[in-house]
Amino acid sequence: MFVANKPTIEMLPDGQFKYHVDFEHLTIGDDIGAICVSRPTNPTGNVITDDEVKKLDALAKKHDIPLIIDNAYGVPFPGIIFSQATPHWNDNTILCMSLSKLGLPGARCGIIIANEELITAITNVNGIISLAPGGIGPAMALEMLKRDDLMRLSQEIIRSFYHQRVLETIDIIRRYLPKERCLIHKPEGAIFLWLWFKDLPISSEELYRRLKKRGVLMVPGHYFFPGLEESWQHAHQCMRMNYVPEPALIEKGIKILSEEIERCLSPE
Amino acid sequence: MFVANKPTIEMLPDGQFKYHVDFEHLTIGDDIGAICVSRPTNPTGNVITDDEVKKLDALAKKHDIPLIIDNAYGVPFPGIIFSQATPHWNDNTILCMSLSKLGLPGARCGIIIANEELITAITNVNGIISLAPGGIGPAMALEMLKRDDLMRLSQEIIRSFYHQRVLETIDIIRRYLPKERCLIHKPEGAIFLWLWFKDLPISSEELYRRLKKRGVLMVPGHYFFPGLEESWQHAHQCMRMNYVPEPALIEKGIKILSEEIERCLSPE
Repeated sequence: MFVANKPTIEMLPDGQFKYHVDFEHLTIGDDIGAICVSRPTNPTGNVITDDEVKKLDALAKKHDIPLIIDNAYGVPFPGIIFSQATPHWNDNTILCMSLSKLGLPGARCGIIIANEELITAITNVNGIISLAPGGIGPAMALEMLKRDDLMRLSQEIIRSFYHQRVLETIDIIRRYLPKERCLIHKPEGAIFLWLWFKDLPISSEELYRRLKKRGVLMVPGHYFFPGLEESWQHAHQCMRMNYVPEPALIEKGIKILSEEIERCLSPE
Repeated sequence: MFVANKPTIEMLPDGQFKYHVDFEHLTIGDDIGAICVSRPTNPTGNVITDDEVKKLDALAKKHDIPLIIDNAYGVPFPGIIFSQATPHWNDNTILCMSLSKLGLPGARCGIIIANEELITAITNVNGIISLAPGGIGPAMALEMLKRDDLMRLSQEIIRSFYHQRVLETIDIIRRYLPKERCLIHKPEGAIFLWLWFKDLPISSEELYRRLKKRGVLMVPGHYFFPGLEESWQHAHQCMRMNYVPEPALIEKGIKILSEEIERCLSPE
């Protein structure tokens, strides 16, 4: 049902790296019904570049299939994006947004922007699957639009909160884990940091178990590669961490993480 | 997937009738995984009696399957029930309630009361299907419980509003349609009236089309008998009407209904 493509990995200064769409190995066969990308991406915080979006858009049009962009963290709202990114839409694009990352996950309000034909089809499907969609989220969103709160909160409150937190968290990580121990995907958006333990002698799933025993929850990386045909060692070397808790709590967790990493690398 | 049982029909004074569970023809084979009943029932406004509930409960226990009660209009809230009905629950019962008929359909808040094992299973299913259930409905419900608003509103406002409306609507119907033309299921709860046109020479689906053309929407009855093995003439003689609009509007609709009924019975 799902096919995924491995990214290329660009190494950056300060022990950071960044995924890119590997267009060289991206083949769109007749069995592909849509191209789907998340921007910014959970789990990595990667934001595909404007150029990458343009190329994917052209590919989708060429094959007469829609380009689906999961824009839940994106521009213009909630705007949790720290790099340059131009909002993208045209009538071959299905742009998915939400109120959830704006601080209203309980409203369960998804927003889909697409051409009329597609919206009619999605409305019909939703009418059967959901029977009656919730009305509180749309009512709140309408009011927020009227007051211009969607943009104001995104730009003034939400973006800067997350940006400050992610910088603080990287600072903390680097106090405990040098780049030889832990690479960090360049944080360009979303609310997670994506850590790459290149020389980890155990799988990230095993590391997850050891951390959990000590009260630290990070999600092992292999869950985030659905649709990959062959297994990929890299998928078992990564962990997703949430950087939103208070810095003192983050520090407590990172200290335990660094201890467990050391224990793996030099047992006894 | 669904198996349904025809009810017995009891004729009552004043052109009313009432469905009863036909226990004589109710056989619970090994292929039945649960017994499900709606109380009060959409579309009929029927409330199965306490005695019927007890018998269904005993049957379910005997066959070691749960009894599911759709209690969306029921006691103790929203309490849209005009006959005597005792709330029923035990640990073999799955009782379904909701905030929707309390006036909060947009909150999409369903409430399930069942034993712990079942709730754990339902929670797990919901965690996968819905990912994250809405939080606004539960937050409102909690507040309403704290203030005792759920009970107060149900008893003082909601029940009496619907009860007054249904009595007014029956009055209007009888001014235009005598019992020879139209039987009415005894309104014991829920927000619909269930009309039975015994001598209708056309199907209720055709009647629906003629009414729709004149701006009157009533739902043809056959939609409400899913799971019946053989076809049942009765299902094509009934219509569901909503009695909640303003009486003046109801009267306008009923007048058109009576004209269409007359047109069917004495064409030209």
